[in-house]
Amino acid sequence: MMQKAIILMSGGMDSAVTAGIAAERYEPCFLHVNYGQRTEKRELRAFRMLARYYHVKERLVTELGHFKSIGGSALTDKNIKVPRGFSRKGIPVTYVPFRNANLLAVAVSWAEVIGAERIFIGATEEDSAGYPDCRSDFYNAVNQLIRKGTRTGKIRIVTPVIRMNKTQIIRKGMELNVPFRLTWSCYSLESRACGECDSCLRRLKAFQEAGFKDPVPYRKKNP
Amino acid sequence: MMQKAIILMSGGMDSAVTAGIAAERYEPCFLHVNYGQRTEKRELRAFRMLARYYHVKERLVTELGHFKSIGGSALTDKNIKVPRGFSRKGIPVTYVPFRNANLLAVAVSWAEVIGAERIFIGATEEDSAGYPDCRSDFYNAVNQLIRKGTRTGKIRIVTPVIRMNKTQIIRKGMELNVPFRLTWSCYSLESRACGECDSCLRRLKAFQEAGFKDPVPYRKKNP
Repeated sequence: MMQKAIILMSGGMDSAVTAGIAAERYEPCFLHVNYGQRTEKRELRAFRMLARYYHVKERLVTELGHFKSIGGSALTDKNIKVPRGFSRKGIPVTYVPFRNANLLAVAVSWAEVIGAERIFIGATEEDSAGYPDCRSDFYNAVNQLIRKGTRTGKIRIVTPVIRMNKTQIIRKGMELNVPFRLTWSCYSLESRACGECDSCLRRLKAFQEAGFKDPVPYRKKNP
Repeated sequence: MMQKAIILMSGGMDSAVTAGIAAERYEPCFLHVNYGQRTEKRELRAFRMLARYYHVKERLVTELGHFKSIGGSALTDKNIKVPRGFSRKGIPVTYVPFRNANLLAVAVSWAEVIGAERIFIGATEEDSAGYPDCRSDFYNAVNQLIRKGTRTGKIRIVTPVIRMNKTQIIRKGMELNVPFRLTWSCYSLESRACGECDSCLRRLKAFQEAGFKDPVPYRKKNP
């Protein structure tokens, strides 16, 4: 029998490719968190479609309401606009404070109960310029914390795409038949992708560089 | 102006004494988490009364629903009974998997938004025989994680009662006029404390050793 692995599945392309990689060696169990992000419903739909595609039996969908209560990020606070264009240097307004630590804490709790020893997350160091919780160092520190603070100490975080850029992630996904048409990356809209936020722009650029057409619909004509 | 500190306030005696200690040097901000524990409503009442006592302006009460969904602990899963008597060696059935990491992740997110640089938690090493997330090592690892994964890296976890036993905690609380009558420790009941679970038994024993009468009502006559 295959060992279980939990995949943090936002519904975006990085987590979809991470799931494709995990599914080669493990039985994938999908975790999705609604944390009051603007595109919550659309992400959940992407999650469900990807879970069906990968025949995922064990799924956990949960709510973390405090991100909306505390605000402080353009993704969770309607008073802060999602900027157009590529984000500049420094921590962008779309940074959700300590979000990945919150998500991984949920994953570790679940892993202890279902007996999964691996937790996959599609973090990339390319993002880490802006998001401090996307660095390798951060994940090493999470592994250290798990060693100290869990029943068996054996659970590990795995970050298979951390050194890839978006273009390499798309190429890897194409090799593994990851269904990019089912993924959702836009920070701002739910019916069609806006094509203007940092996340859309980087996705579109990467598809172009990888030599593929992005299969999701955009509000504006693809560049 | 006093610096802000967040206190993880369960409503129990350890967190109440921790708040008493924090309030000497910081402006206390209280965080309470409903995670589907049996005595959720009673703990929330204790939280509110303690927040009033300490004149707490900034409060965050949030839900973490996944502990109930995943089960695996007598505190959150109604199919697992809370045992009577002192718990034996090893990890007890009341262990909630990786709970303190989840609670601290919420606290760190909130701290980033409100600008608090200290987070107080009333963990004790006395509990750590059974609960791996109550060890000093665990909190050092959380501090390391915060250094790597937050905006400023400056937030720190503080554990002022970690080396005290329950008797010492009560004595310290009495010095600081901590209102023990407002606290709640029972794992099992909400109207009167059961007097039979591990948490009640240890509290009663500690009050006796400290030479005080426990002011909360018990179902059975105090020993």
